[in-house]
Amino acid sequence: MSFSVTILGNSSAKPTPKAHPSAQVVNLNEQYYLVDAGEGVQQQLIRRGINPLRLRAVFISHLHGDHCFGLFPLIATLGLEGKRTPLDIYAPAPMGEILDYHRKYFWDDLPYEVKWHEVRTTEHYIVMENNTLEVWAVPLRHRVPTAGYLFKEKEPGLNVDKFKIERYGLSIAQIVAAKRGEDITLDNGEVIPNSMLTYKPYNARSYAYLSDTNYSAKAAERVHGVDLLYHETTYSDKEAQWAKGRGHSTTLQAARVAQLAEAKRLIIGHFSSRYKDHNALAEECRTIFPNTDIAIEGEIFYIEEQR
Amino acid sequence: MSFSVTILGNSSAKPTPKAHPSAQVVNLNEQYYLVDAGEGVQQQLIRRGINPLRLRAVFISHLHGDHCFGLFPLIATLGLEGKRTPLDIYAPAPMGEILDYHRKYFWDDLPYEVKWHEVRTTEHYIVMENNTLEVWAVPLRHRVPTAGYLFKEKEPGLNVDKFKIERYGLSIAQIVAAKRGEDITLDNGEVIPNSMLTYKPYNARSYAYLSDTNYSAKAAERVHGVDLLYHETTYSDKEAQWAKGRGHSTTLQAARVAQLAEAKRLIIGHFSSRYKDHNALAEECRTIFPNTDIAIEGEIFYIEEQR
Repeated sequence: MSFSVTILGNSSAKPTPKAHPSAQVVNLNEQYYLVDAGEGVQQQLIRRGINPLRLRAVFISHLHGDHCFGLFPLIATLGLEGKRTPLDIYAPAPMGEILDYHRKYFWDDLPYEVKWHEVRTTEHYIVMENNTLEVWAVPLRHRVPTAGYLFKEKEPGLNVDKFKIERYGLSIAQIVAAKRGEDITLDNGEVIPNSMLTYKPYNARSYAYLSDTNYSAKAAERVHGVDLLYHETTYSDKEAQWAKGRGHSTTLQAARVAQLAEAKRLIIGHFSSRYKDHNALAEECRTIFPNTDIAIEGEIFYIEEQR
Repeated sequence: MSFSVTILGNSSAKPTPKAHPSAQVVNLNEQYYLVDAGEGVQQQLIRRGINPLRLRAVFISHLHGDHCFGLFPLIATLGLEGKRTPLDIYAPAPMGEILDYHRKYFWDDLPYEVKWHEVRTTEHYIVMENNTLEVWAVPLRHRVPTAGYLFKEKEPGLNVDKFKIERYGLSIAQIVAAKRGEDITLDNGEVIPNSMLTYKPYNARSYAYLSDTNYSAKAAERVHGVDLLYHETTYSDKEAQWAKGRGHSTTLQAARVAQLAEAKRLIIGHFSSRYKDHNALAEECRTIFPNTDIAIEGEIFYIEEQR
């Protein structure tokens, strides 16, 4: 199954001629989830070849404009595009009120349902779950209630070893039973333990989105072992004092979180408009966490299947 | 004095990878006025080299998202950019309520005042005036209360003919009096009529913005003689029936308005995303009004001084 993250925006609140505010799309097996929705997100989706109608749900980290002002035009356009199925929006309060007044002033004729699900920003818990995915809220430390999100793929089903199927002449019924994890009793009465017949095709994968936040060791624990970690780095280490007061992180703090979480790979973004050279920021991170990359807009970060 | 219009967005509601929703900047003598504010307008301003802090006022035609969703992020960012002087916003009701709830949910710490001035969409009247400019509301025919805007430069002051100053040996006081339009009495008692001493440097210029609207002969009358006319052409003439139902205009209707208004030049925009070839739309207009141009994003339309 494919598991990837497409970067739609990597800048903080102040716009620049090219960079857009925070927005990403998580794609798990062609199911698309929007994570934050800064201004211009609907255009960014189209530019990256992602049909906004395919979005399964939207996850908003907090109610600052640079993380959600793109949501309201997107909702309006989805109506024009013919959306008729509900859109699930996971966000902290009072997003419900904000959606209500948009309904009142702008969406009186919206042809589909917008369902808000309140995200509690002080608890680490599952906010959404389906057959393939769990999405966990990760409490963050920002100026307003803020949640990061941990996308955890569910354990893939067992595969049955082709050679064992031949050797034991397993029937379809027996193969299905083995996939369920059962031991198999052959016609001669011999019992084959499930572990001898099946194997896990690959390990369940995970992605964590941590923005906006001060340094949080607790958040690092909660995403421990994550395959791919996005952590905001609004500021260089030189601006540590300023970052602290603004509820943001520096390059070195992001790198420490990645190190503490034993993440396999780190992506950094939410850059202050003062930085023209994002490579310099990545280099700061790499002094602590070498496997660091920049969240370049349009870039797709793949999480490969591994056994 | 410079008088120009910079196109920031030329598309209707549905976004395309490149086009932005309605937004323009009118520049009269380096005083900047934003006309409509579709999503992404703050980024479009920066891309076109216009500092958002220089905006004197904002004029919103109506409260559909594709004409105002960019205003709210712009207001938020202006605070971050250090704006401290009030921002005047001219728009139909209930923009005041909409600004209030943004204040409540997003701008609790906005460091400057946002002043809403209600625009009555059924009257043709001056909504704003200063030393160089009058801005008139022009009632339009759309699905919601909508006003177009007519930017009328005030008559420039009189110039005194250099040669006459020499011939009559006019004093500074006499020159100033002549600029005021007074006749001048020379020391020998001779009275020189003002008309013999002065001339108008150029004719006052005007720009009209008409979007969104059904065909309106009344609007054409109200902008009669305009130098530059922007008129929406959401649809081709082939879609006349659909356009009527949606409260929009076709190419030929826009051209007829330009013809009836005896405009000197027509710009068309607010194109439906279904049209890839805007030249074909302009060609339809030119069958009735030859001096038609496309509102290409980033293009600056200058209104030259003429005598």
